[in-house]
Amino acid sequence: MCVHELYAQNNEKYASAFDKGSLPMPPAKHVAIVTCMDARVEPASQLGINLGDAHVIRNAGGRAQDAIRNLIISQRLLGTREIILFHHTDCGMLTFTTDQLKQIVKDASPGDSAVASAVDKFDSFLDFKDLEGSVREDVEFLKSHPLILKDTPVTGWIYDVKSGKILRVV
Amino acid sequence: MCVHELYAQNNEKYASAFDKGSLPMPPAKHVAIVTCMDARVEPASQLGINLGDAHVIRNAGGRAQDAIRNLIISQRLLGTREIILFHHTDCGMLTFTTDQLKQIVKDASPGDSAVASAVDKFDSFLDFKDLEGSVREDVEFLKSHPLILKDTPVTGWIYDVKSGKILRVV
Repeated sequence: MCVHELYAQNNEKYASAFDKGSLPMPPAKHVAIVTCMDARVEPASQLGINLGDAHVIRNAGGRAQDAIRNLIISQRLLGTREIILFHHTDCGMLTFTTDQLKQIVKDASPGDSAVASAVDKFDSFLDFKDLEGSVREDVEFLKSHPLILKDTPVTGWIYDVKSGKILRVV
Repeated sequence: MCVHELYAQNNEKYASAFDKGSLPMPPAKHVAIVTCMDARVEPASQLGINLGDAHVIRNAGGRAQDAIRNLIISQRLLGTREIILFHHTDCGMLTFTTDQLKQIVKDASPGDSAVASAVDKFDSFLDFKDLEGSVREDVEFLKSHPLILKDTPVTGWIYDVKSGKILRVV
């Protein structure tokens, strides 16, 4: 059974009790969260985000460099005015380098030049070696980015997957 | 009060009852979800995703084109083997064009050539005019992408923000 069948069943239960069909499009708390795609990260519960309150942008690592398109849309069209960025302990992004990942992809398709040339188009997979450093780097990147609104409060945090706690870095 | 202060308070409650600190890094259900950053979208509740089960990638629109880096990491390093993609009704991406957004950004910083040149670097903000068409386009994009593993089951769905229901498109 594919997982989508299970999730479709689960959704029937959710929808049968759903009573929040009139929420507006702009986030009520005017905030955008940037965090990792990791399966142990679940922002709504972990931060107590109510439905309709916040944009939630998730990518591998919770990297700011990969979130700019989203944040421009979030700020300019949908009125968010604060950014909260999370990376987390035991992140997969700490476990490899871009060159290693490129080699893994190429080794899985030996002699396939379409695969090799496609993966080589990535300058970086945005992996990092220093968790706290990556949070500082991303917050600085956002604060100095010409397309992020000046004076946006941007804070950077680490979520601990062992304790469930968040810790502010910057 | 910045919203991060509220979320830090909420997290204290979450962490005090947290008992899932031993989950492994790879998603237990070997699945990656791609969906929108919209504040009315909340995949864990809406699909019944348990903590640790699934990668959740979220960007403006839930666009596949913007998720490839994440999906390569998800599949090649963390073992996911299915992709479920959602777009949703009343999406902000249906309300503007790339040219309009570029003009909004430029008008907000008149005469600022750094802003103008930064926003002009975006070929597209991945806006769309046809909701169902965008789901089909994204699924096809993933199925034919050289860096997505062959034979990955990829399904495309629409989440209805008024009813809480998901509807399969492809």
